[in-house]
Amino acid sequence: MEIQTKLKMEDLPLKKSIGKVVVLLSGGIDSTTLVYYMRDRGYKVYPISFYYGQKHKKELDFADLTCQKLNLSFKAFNINILRELAPSALTRKDIEVPKGIYNEETMKITVVPNRNMVFLALATAYAIGLGIREVAYAAHSGDHAIYADCRPAFIEAMRKTIELCDDSKVSLSTPFTLLDKSEIIKIGFNLGVDYSLTWSCYEGKELACGKCGTCRERLEAFEKLGKIDPIKYEG
Amino acid sequence: MEIQTKLKMEDLPLKKSIGKVVVLLSGGIDSTTLVYYMRDRGYKVYPISFYYGQKHKKELDFADLTCQKLNLSFKAFNINILRELAPSALTRKDIEVPKGIYNEETMKITVVPNRNMVFLALATAYAIGLGIREVAYAAHSGDHAIYADCRPAFIEAMRKTIELCDDSKVSLSTPFTLLDKSEIIKIGFNLGVDYSLTWSCYEGKELACGKCGTCRERLEAFEKLGKIDPIKYEG
Repeated sequence: MEIQTKLKMEDLPLKKSIGKVVVLLSGGIDSTTLVYYMRDRGYKVYPISFYYGQKHKKELDFADLTCQKLNLSFKAFNINILRELAPSALTRKDIEVPKGIYNEETMKITVVPNRNMVFLALATAYAIGLGIREVAYAAHSGDHAIYADCRPAFIEAMRKTIELCDDSKVSLSTPFTLLDKSEIIKIGFNLGVDYSLTWSCYEGKELACGKCGTCRERLEAFEKLGKIDPIKYEG
Repeated sequence: MEIQTKLKMEDLPLKKSIGKVVVLLSGGIDSTTLVYYMRDRGYKVYPISFYYGQKHKKELDFADLTCQKLNLSFKAFNINILRELAPSALTRKDIEVPKGIYNEETMKITVVPNRNMVFLALATAYAIGLGIREVAYAAHSGDHAIYADCRPAFIEAMRKTIELCDDSKVSLSTPFTLLDKSEIIKIGFNLGVDYSLTWSCYEGKELACGKCGTCRERLEAFEKLGKIDPIKYEG
């Protein structure tokens, strides 16, 4: 019997992982970083986005730009009925996006009811259809107080539900659960994320407003790292 | 102090429950019976249906007929992207609906990946938007082998996830989990369900085919009870 003592080049895996993963990509900082992160782990990444009537639909154009840059096939699906089903300041013209600090009281109106479950359910259907066994999304610690569907307890329950929904046993990855936005950006800088190709502002204007909760949160996260946010703001 | 010894009529609740519930209604036997059942429990019922590209979309017309009969406001939402996201014999013209007995091998192709999680996620969003704290669907024991997303383990995981997705703590009711179709029909007869206003056949033709898995299952369930299925079949 011949014992193999030395690996040849062709025996080595070319990548750290040969897995595929469907990643929920909004075009914002967290999910864009997640795409780079999973790619760095060796995954073939299938980003998926949703148009749900959000005022800041230009985030999808930015998601597309990142996918073009990384040569990933980008899928954006229309789930506009979410606006009809459940009202929110993010989707309804008659409800104003709140300005100022990102606190519980002012930001509650930006909750799109059950958005994450809807997106994850659809992303899982997409994964099953493609024969992919992993779905990832960029839940992080900054959202826990306001958004019930970003909290660890929800994520754990969702993980189990996704595993049970189909015999192919799809797994849910949420590597950023315990990180805050500045820690995510730090990872992103190490991975070469181009943050000029991201969009966070809840207003869908030409330039980011710099005043809404998500703009403030973004600016603070860059500031905390002593880095410059590369996008342009109003005024 | 005056002690109230006798309740007056106006002190009595008019209904067994004054709750509201969103019910997933497909227009088939199980979910139609569930609408009657929840109504009988005293709930104000908000039926919700989805068009997801199913060949048997006429089931939605039947759902509508039941709602008209019971004077319920019926909402049908278009979630056609499910067909694009994940292929199935139920939604794709190029995949034939299997004929004959409802066994695991032949029926696997009728699985619409993750359909129940998608529907329940959207129904929950709808409930949250309306301030309703309960969602019901008609999972039953007959579907367990083929459809992972009808099994008790999935339902329990989903129940927990729904409870955690929003601070309003929506609960999921699945009163038929342990019943088979003939037991559901038995309940339905006691509640006066008009089964001529239901549709089950996976083919979307003028008359039910009588040959596909769901037609066979339906016919067997009526036969087991010694009852006549009031709908018309081909041939």
